[in-house]
Amino acid sequence: MNNTEHPTLEFDSPIRRFVTKRLIGVDKEVSIRDAVSKMVDFNISSMAVLEGEEVIGFFTDADIKERVVARGLSCQEPVNDIMTTDLITADINFSIREVLEIMSKHGIKHILVTEQRKTVGIITLRDLETMDRQKFETYIARE
Amino acid sequence: MNNTEHPTLEFDSPIRRFVTKRLIGVDKEVSIRDAVSKMVDFNISSMAVLEGEEVIGFFTDADIKERVVARGLSCQEPVNDIMTTDLITADINFSIREVLEIMSKHGIKHILVTEQRKTVGIITLRDLETMDRQKFETYIARE
Repeated sequence: MNNTEHPTLEFDSPIRRFVTKRLIGVDKEVSIRDAVSKMVDFNISSMAVLEGEEVIGFFTDADIKERVVARGLSCQEPVNDIMTTDLITADINFSIREVLEIMSKHGIKHILVTEQRKTVGIITLRDLETMDRQKFETYIARE
Repeated sequence: MNNTEHPTLEFDSPIRRFVTKRLIGVDKEVSIRDAVSKMVDFNISSMAVLEGEEVIGFFTDADIKERVVARGLSCQEPVNDIMTTDLITADINFSIREVLEIMSKHGIKHILVTEQRKTVGIITLRDLETMDRQKFETYIARE
């Protein structure tokens, strides 16, 4: 950064720099109850569903409320029954701006990150907002 | 604001200006299933529990995962069984800074807002972060 007083906004930077979260997943046959226990243990708000090594689905806190609790579905059912299979992904070389646009277009807050078509991580709207906040606070601290 | 190029940070402003959300609640005898259906309808991540007109409890998405799904509790049980009763509140005249400190101290992301000891609303960490982001973007737009 050349100008320390006015840090450059990095909306055009690739998300690669910010994808630090390990993607946590469970096999598609795992029960909703066991999968959610794992979410509680890891303090995460979304989870990947796997078939072998491949990510075949995804679900979030909102899906648990809507598809399990509100519908009275048994927690013994496999996560296979509640996952979203129409996966929206962003390549790790996409810019933050592009990812925000994809999230906005699809009305989603979580997006799977791929590299050479393989799922390698996840990034959330909250991650991006928090990044902004840190930049903001950095700017303020320099005032 | 006197200086349009460098908007003043408002961490010392009272939260009053930012508490716009209506507090949504259910009676303590309502089933977990019906309460969560209401959360889905209103797209909210926490809910107040009422006894008559009084707020006697509170629960969040995290509580639903941990206390209902991960434990295999029946969704037919009343919300009374999963609510947090040790309520942490912030007076509507507290500053944003004070509220952030309370959230940080207790490790919480949602806080009930009171006015003359009566619960009048709710504010979340996300609300405060988003406020920062808006200020940040306003600053950028003025560059």
